[in-house]
Amino acid sequence: MNYFYFELVHQSKKSRARVGRIHTPHGIIETPNFVPVATNACPKALDGVLLDNLDVQLMFCNTYHLLLHPGTNVVKEAGGLHKFMNRKSPIITDSGGFQVFSLMYGTVHDEIKSRGKKSQNNSVMKVSEDGVLFKSYRDGKSILLTPESTVQAQKDLGADIIIPLDELPPYHVDKQALNNSFDRTHRWEKRSLEEHLRNPQQQAMYAVIHGGVDNELRKKSCQILGNLPFDGFAIGGSLGKTRDEMLAMLAHMMPHVPREKSNHLLGIGDIPSLEPAIKLGIDTFDASHPTRCARHGHLFTFNGTVKIMHSKYERDFTPIDPQCTCYTCLNYTRAYIRHLFKAHELTAYHLTSLHNVHFMMQLMKQYRTMILNDQI
Amino acid sequence: MNYFYFELVHQSKKSRARVGRIHTPHGIIETPNFVPVATNACPKALDGVLLDNLDVQLMFCNTYHLLLHPGTNVVKEAGGLHKFMNRKSPIITDSGGFQVFSLMYGTVHDEIKSRGKKSQNNSVMKVSEDGVLFKSYRDGKSILLTPESTVQAQKDLGADIIIPLDELPPYHVDKQALNNSFDRTHRWEKRSLEEHLRNPQQQAMYAVIHGGVDNELRKKSCQILGNLPFDGFAIGGSLGKTRDEMLAMLAHMMPHVPREKSNHLLGIGDIPSLEPAIKLGIDTFDASHPTRCARHGHLFTFNGTVKIMHSKYERDFTPIDPQCTCYTCLNYTRAYIRHLFKAHELTAYHLTSLHNVHFMMQLMKQYRTMILNDQI
Repeated sequence: MNYFYFELVHQSKKSRARVGRIHTPHGIIETPNFVPVATNACPKALDGVLLDNLDVQLMFCNTYHLLLHPGTNVVKEAGGLHKFMNRKSPIITDSGGFQVFSLMYGTVHDEIKSRGKKSQNNSVMKVSEDGVLFKSYRDGKSILLTPESTVQAQKDLGADIIIPLDELPPYHVDKQALNNSFDRTHRWEKRSLEEHLRNPQQQAMYAVIHGGVDNELRKKSCQILGNLPFDGFAIGGSLGKTRDEMLAMLAHMMPHVPREKSNHLLGIGDIPSLEPAIKLGIDTFDASHPTRCARHGHLFTFNGTVKIMHSKYERDFTPIDPQCTCYTCLNYTRAYIRHLFKAHELTAYHLTSLHNVHFMMQLMKQYRTMILNDQI
Repeated sequence: MNYFYFELVHQSKKSRARVGRIHTPHGIIETPNFVPVATNACPKALDGVLLDNLDVQLMFCNTYHLLLHPGTNVVKEAGGLHKFMNRKSPIITDSGGFQVFSLMYGTVHDEIKSRGKKSQNNSVMKVSEDGVLFKSYRDGKSILLTPESTVQAQKDLGADIIIPLDELPPYHVDKQALNNSFDRTHRWEKRSLEEHLRNPQQQAMYAVIHGGVDNELRKKSCQILGNLPFDGFAIGGSLGKTRDEMLAMLAHMMPHVPREKSNHLLGIGDIPSLEPAIKLGIDTFDASHPTRCARHGHLFTFNGTVKIMHSKYERDFTPIDPQCTCYTCLNYTRAYIRHLFKAHELTAYHLTSLHNVHFMMQLMKQYRTMILNDQI
């Protein structure tokens, strides 16, 4: 397929880290790269055009949220997600499955505390071979999400990269239930792929590799999905309950992920995870972590995190990071930003989110340079 | 004084409307003009540098809020308000009195409903000839605001235009109480002026004309304050409970306001009030109205207000105002902005506030052109 392909620029001599270029109909994504999340077709407290100017090369939108509002039919009528949110560069959407199953089981953290009991706010009505039936939190309407319907929704949205429906198993589940979920996920992904290939519409589809923290299942998932004509590989399912567990899983799994295609680690973007995951061969990462941190006043710099609410910044009239060239650092000081937080000004969230996303872009650029120089 | 003066550019042949230029140490303010409010040294959901780029020529900051956070001493240490908020263009600050007395009496609206009873959240502890003692809502600390201390606070802030302490009388008050308040306000303003003139520090001070909706008192206030070396005149105190009441008061009063100096109508910026007030000779207006409207989805255009939450905009893929050249209108559609409101994205407030302030700037420019052509 010539509208979407991965070009290897450099393979590090030191690790599995690599520099590449993902070619898409809306331009090139240099890898490794960070993918800001724009859940509702809008990066929180920022706007898409602003992120274009920060050289954000791929943005992650959530089909679940866009299905519920404004509806994928509205986005389609606008001419697709790129037109709707006025983004010129590549976009990736997920299937909606993750959000639906998160609503069912809660987060891993919730689940660990409640030992796998279903969440109280359960809006999932039924999971069957067909798909998953859930209730809209906006208007109570029942929505059936199937391997086919998520693809149709994502066709309406028109992102460059789309994701098949998968089932997210709870973290605490017995071996048999995990195997059943594993098998169903792969059947669903295949159905989504078939639906997609009926009308590719210049979109690429990434498989979602499953298997939890079971090395054998992960390997098997890579084999099944690697034999299907997916355009790339997302790493999903349960990634373990600690960073170490995730990295151990990736270390075992990554050698089984086809090297000639791009891959993406779903939902991970905390800074300490990046370098080890890049060394294991991860190409792209999405996370709402940097903008969420910003809204809590945790500001990233190459010298560590500035917790701007600390009283020591009250009279600190230097930028968040004196080396940084972002709009926020060029124009405002730590004392001013701290004051905005203390005064509950929305502007605080805007200026700091902008800074943290800019930082992520610089950090990933630095990793690309280090790989090109075989430093990591 | 040559660092601050009003230059008359054109007097309309049709009304008292005039085009002028207020020369300040931080540049020129073309009049008539609109003055966005940046209560906490930050225009809500926007940032100051962004407004510089919209050609906002004067910005209004509130001494009361800055006294409580971050403290005028912190702003002074930053090098003043211009440095603290990184604004190159002129700034006006008020005395803090309005906020203190609003806390005491509530708004005119509250007061009309409660017939002048003190508000439940009363943090004002004592009003005397000396000044007003109130409790900080942040830390419960007692603060004495006097005609002299507000000037010292405003010296620390270093705005181009500062305001003397005045007493805001409640709307429902007997004639004797009103007269007493009137006399005290003028004594306080004179004390503030004397304090200011001890060290002008290249700041200008506007008097605050009082007298409520009593034409004789307003005339007397103009005479008292007109005989003192103030650099301009703000119109304050109770402006009546309806637009008509305010305009009737202004019609009587404006002929008594010295013409050779600039004037400012405090806290008024709703669109229907602007043209009649300009025709009566008002030079500048401040109000949080345009940004507050924006946050409620009321978007200004030259064809009336777009209430963006209306379902008719769900699939309206045109800009808020197709004629508008603001960032929001150049980049985003009504359908998208509406979606952001529905999805509770903070970005909605940012983009719409930017649009409404841009609109106000264009509107005032239009009024200046109309005056230059003797059309109003």
